[in-house]
Amino acid sequence: EIFAALRVKLAGAAQTLAGRRVVITAGPTHEPIDPVRYIANRSSGKQGYALAEAARDAGADVVLISGPVNLAPPPGIRLVCVETAREMAEAVETALPCDIFIAAAAVADWRTRTDAAQKIKKGGDGPPVLTMVENPDILASVARRVANRPPVVVGFAAETETVIAHARAKLAKKGCDLIVANDVGEGSEVMGGSDNAVVLVSPEGEQAWPRLPKDEVARRLIAHIAQMRPVGESHPGV
Amino acid sequence: EIFAALRVKLAGAAQTLAGRRVVITAGPTHEPIDPVRYIANRSSGKQGYALAEAARDAGADVVLISGPVNLAPPPGIRLVCVETAREMAEAVETALPCDIFIAAAAVADWRTRTDAAQKIKKGGDGPPVLTMVENPDILASVARRVANRPPVVVGFAAETETVIAHARAKLAKKGCDLIVANDVGEGSEVMGGSDNAVVLVSPEGEQAWPRLPKDEVARRLIAHIAQMRPVGESHPGV
Repeated sequence: EIFAALRVKLAGAAQTLAGRRVVITAGPTHEPIDPVRYIANRSSGKQGYALAEAARDAGADVVLISGPVNLAPPPGIRLVCVETAREMAEAVETALPCDIFIAAAAVADWRTRTDAAQKIKKGGDGPPVLTMVENPDILASVARRVANRPPVVVGFAAETETVIAHARAKLAKKGCDLIVANDVGEGSEVMGGSDNAVVLVSPEGEQAWPRLPKDEVARRLIAHIAQMRPVGESHPGV
Repeated sequence: EIFAALRVKLAGAAQTLAGRRVVITAGPTHEPIDPVRYIANRSSGKQGYALAEAARDAGADVVLISGPVNLAPPPGIRLVCVETAREMAEAVETALPCDIFIAAAAVADWRTRTDAAQKIKKGGDGPPVLTMVENPDILASVARRVANRPPVVVGFAAETETVIAHARAKLAKKGCDLIVANDVGEGSEVMGGSDNAVVLVSPEGEQAWPRLPKDEVARRLIAHIAQMRPVGESHPGV
């Protein structure tokens, strides 16, 4: 039944990614403080999962590397479940090489320096001070690879202010080919919600899209990415 | 249909809490670091929700004050949804007076001192240091009330080591009538799981129960609580 539905969908979508291998990260990461507490973020994984489904419908061989979310595993997609940024970085390394890498996950920038083996107790010493250390930068490490750098590397930038400027800075700093920027500030209802309003930021310029359902954003993004010229090629990739 | 099912259930359970008002907290609290990041814990809310349903089935008028969980609102129960410990404390104050208060929520002991208005950026200053401050102690503040102290106050203690000793210390420190202690350490699979192995710790002694499904733990706990003698009464309450 699932496969029948899938065939119908496949028949309906242009096979713009037939034979391509696409690796997508989605969802938040959870960074443990101790056995019961952790640092999280409001990413629901919906946009990343929708991208994985749109890439599958476009004929791609998809690996979806997901942080902890409450979404059903999409049929026809290889799903790798992880919790922390370090686990996600490892899973991405394992999934390479690929033709297209899309970093849609909201990876925690930091984790606590120590992950306590036992629950931190309320005690006489007062509240703890959590010293943070930087997590691996998955997007930059993929985009800056010398060997096996995926021909197309796409990042996301969830911002709450000066969205475009932050996205352009991120594009340069990470060395990727496209940043999909969105405003996740209060009132945007993007994180956890069903809609998304994105701006595509590339070396060529900016392209603002209207607010759309996340699966429609996904279809359009996959169509856009499918026609992107791989870095270093002077002609569009076939 | 729901009400028919409810009537069947009600008919099946002894109405040991008929006419009693029961306030129950459940789930984790989320403590914002900035607009996208927060501190969470692994509580699923399952045990608290099961307790609310068992209390309803025993004839009680139930208010369930819940942190962010992925559970359906139980029929026949007043549900109040909150996010932070401070919001939960307020909702509990509003729900008093009651006959029985059960603090099953895994309330964050601490929150960050400042909740940044904008997303904290990765920058030249290196990772942030999160200075924590203590959250309100909901269980202690209810158990230590002078006016309107609920006749029965029950707390939970989720521990990862020396479970009983920590639970007994908590019983004394908070001033409650019963602590339901459980080991949520690695390998216990209690947090998020369907089973629970609890030890009841009261001024009279300890009672260890076998590992049981959370709804069975709930039924037994409600039966146990229904026969507890309210503080200060020399005869069992009717």
